[in-house]
Amino acid sequence: MSHPPGGPDLPAWADDDRRARAAWSRLVEPGDVLAGAAVLALGAVPALRHVLVGRALPDEVAELVPGGTPRRRLHDALVRWRVRLDHLDPDRDLRVVRRLGGRVLVPGDDEWPRGLDDLGVGAPPCLWVRGEPDVAVAAERSVAVVGARASTPYGEHVAADLAAGLAERGLTVVSGGAFGIDASAHRGALAAGGLTCAVLACGVDRAYPRAHEDLLRRVVDAGGLVLAEVPPGSMPSRWRFLERNRLIAALAGATVVVEAAWRSGALSTAQRAAGLGRPLGAVPGPVTSPTSAGCHRMLRDLQATCVTDAAEVAELVLPIGAVLPEAPRVPLEDHDDLGPDDVRVLDALPVRRGRSVGSLAQVAGLPEPVVAAGLGRLELLGLAARESGLDGVGWRRLRSRRPEQLRPDGGATPVTGP
Amino acid sequence: MSHPPGGPDLPAWADDDRRARAAWSRLVEPGDVLAGAAVLALGAVPALRHVLVGRALPDEVAELVPGGTPRRRLHDALVRWRVRLDHLDPDRDLRVVRRLGGRVLVPGDDEWPRGLDDLGVGAPPCLWVRGEPDVAVAAERSVAVVGARASTPYGEHVAADLAAGLAERGLTVVSGGAFGIDASAHRGALAAGGLTCAVLACGVDRAYPRAHEDLLRRVVDAGGLVLAEVPPGSMPSRWRFLERNRLIAALAGATVVVEAAWRSGALSTAQRAAGLGRPLGAVPGPVTSPTSAGCHRMLRDLQATCVTDAAEVAELVLPIGAVLPEAPRVPLEDHDDLGPDDVRVLDALPVRRGRSVGSLAQVAGLPEPVVAAGLGRLELLGLAARESGLDGVGWRRLRSRRPEQLRPDGGATPVTGP
Repeated sequence: MSHPPGGPDLPAWADDDRRARAAWSRLVEPGDVLAGAAVLALGAVPALRHVLVGRALPDEVAELVPGGTPRRRLHDALVRWRVRLDHLDPDRDLRVVRRLGGRVLVPGDDEWPRGLDDLGVGAPPCLWVRGEPDVAVAAERSVAVVGARASTPYGEHVAADLAAGLAERGLTVVSGGAFGIDASAHRGALAAGGLTCAVLACGVDRAYPRAHEDLLRRVVDAGGLVLAEVPPGSMPSRWRFLERNRLIAALAGATVVVEAAWRSGALSTAQRAAGLGRPLGAVPGPVTSPTSAGCHRMLRDLQATCVTDAAEVAELVLPIGAVLPEAPRVPLEDHDDLGPDDVRVLDALPVRRGRSVGSLAQVAGLPEPVVAAGLGRLELLGLAARESGLDGVGWRRLRSRRPEQLRPDGGATPVTGP
Repeated sequence: MSHPPGGPDLPAWADDDRRARAAWSRLVEPGDVLAGAAVLALGAVPALRHVLVGRALPDEVAELVPGGTPRRRLHDALVRWRVRLDHLDPDRDLRVVRRLGGRVLVPGDDEWPRGLDDLGVGAPPCLWVRGEPDVAVAAERSVAVVGARASTPYGEHVAADLAAGLAERGLTVVSGGAFGIDASAHRGALAAGGLTCAVLACGVDRAYPRAHEDLLRRVVDAGGLVLAEVPPGSMPSRWRFLERNRLIAALAGATVVVEAAWRSGALSTAQRAAGLGRPLGAVPGPVTSPTSAGCHRMLRDLQATCVTDAAEVAELVLPIGAVLPEAPRVPLEDHDDLGPDDVRVLDALPVRRGRSVGSLAQVAGLPEPVVAAGLGRLELLGLAARESGLDGVGWRRLRSRRPEQLRPDGGATPVTGP
């Protein structure tokens, strides 16, 4: 199949930016930087005309590819894209997605998520969308929660819990719709009545895995989003999964990996996010669990932040001060808030029979006036009691001050002993 | 009790540095920086003479205390130390420790562990030792493995495993002899026939907890060490536990915390180690386990390194290149080592009926020559097979290349998709 250069017998859709970009998404595989460079250098419509008529791409395209690219590769790319010209029909693709209540977004649309622009020539030509929310708004405050398909109940529990907590904080939970951690993240956000967004490696009219057809429908029905860069009808492939990961990384404000084996697709998402300068979180797990090895690797090699709850994850994306992490509340212990001298006096107090101030001073290694003053403070706190015996006044220790009292502990200096 | 200044009725031991330091360890509580400053400024013998006769300490002592200290505090300290003069008898303390086959070390001894000098005026005046090994040599290549007393079976398993792996690498395992993680660390090192060192908050002639009398005896009998800065007969106290932690941190080349609650004594050891510039490791655990919360806090707040096995811990102390961490060996997957085009060809290959090169080119979105070349490579790798059918030659995919073959994976780019 060939067309005369720029002639009037080019299809009508070829002159419309949106439909030209839809065509690009059909012609090229995700992440094709030569296609991205051609669209960026020439515009989607003029660049597409080169493909339709088989005309060589100008050198300026090659210059946009990071590190440059030889002419021969530009030629090969043109040949590669033209392989798929035969069945090209963007109007049909648009009809299919509209029938599902969906749409196609292109750069320049208000709804276009700005994060994708960070991908440069690797950005998708367009975004196929199902679901009501404004994609730009949803992505503005979002976190990707991704992880192993072969997850453990531990990981699934944590993923659902994190997602619910993020949803409650008004954050969009982005994930890949896969088995395991991804599904738990979507479900956690749904359970909390929040907004969740599934980014697929196949067309938005398809479900992969098939068993998640219901889940994806629930995402859309609950006011969430299903996105893809490949057009309707597209099947997933390993290549598309890997490139889909870069979309998740670029869309979300931060990426958190809940469980991942030492080698895992979730780690590729993490690496893409790190490459884009997005904050990265990793949920730790037992070192005896191979399913957490990838997360620990992120903590070591990718300088990921260790995150253990939704508040800590939210800190990755929200401005400082917007999140007040809830420190665990721990019982106040006897020694808390005591000065070093008073700790030593407390240590020296016997529990049973009282001891004199002189004897306490020797045990504590403190002068008597210091011991006496400390005893006064400890008595006020209900930690020491004086008693009269045959040999004068003695002091003994009272245990368990305020056992019912809890306080938030934001301090950094632990004072509990072994 | 009072003595004329420097007169001949001072006890004989007061003129001997080793015995003077033994006396200091009896007079002052661990970590008393004023005592440390007095000994550092004047020498152990002259400083002790001030205490024995009740003579004011010179101003130069105050200058050695970080941040300086008012004269009044120097006076109070002198009064405080003199409280314990009555029962002072360093020769008796030395006899007790010698009877146990032990000894007392002072700075200047070949065996004195250099790491303690990093404590400055907080360094102990001497070290009470049981066990045969040279303390300096044992500390030279050592790691502290510490953690919660209220440990879980997970933490105990990991602590014993780490300690055994460190012992096998010739590293001394330092810990505090406490219940839980400490005991597991000592036992793990013992089980591997390695060297372990228990640093106590009580005298080396005592066992705390009592239930660990056997364990501490086994440490010494197996060629290990039991150390303390407090003299024989001393009881532990909360204060002494906290100050003992600084000894562990200073003695060991690195400190690793296996399990620790949000507030935990093990965290104080970690903070001391961080303050001394020692490498810090934290073993992650389930985020659902409060017993791992302190370790995760270390990863977040103390920039601790996430460590999951003995090789990673050894990396903290051994020079770069001395440790070759064993990366988990994972099965080679079909897509490993393939170029992007070949991955796309492989993705396009059907498993059952063969497909023509032209059809494959369209599915893969690649020109036919590229597909044909890729098929040749995949055939060589045993991943593709050609078959003749009624409609010409077709290609199909063969699965599971080299399933038995394993290789170490040191690379950073995971290539498995979902």
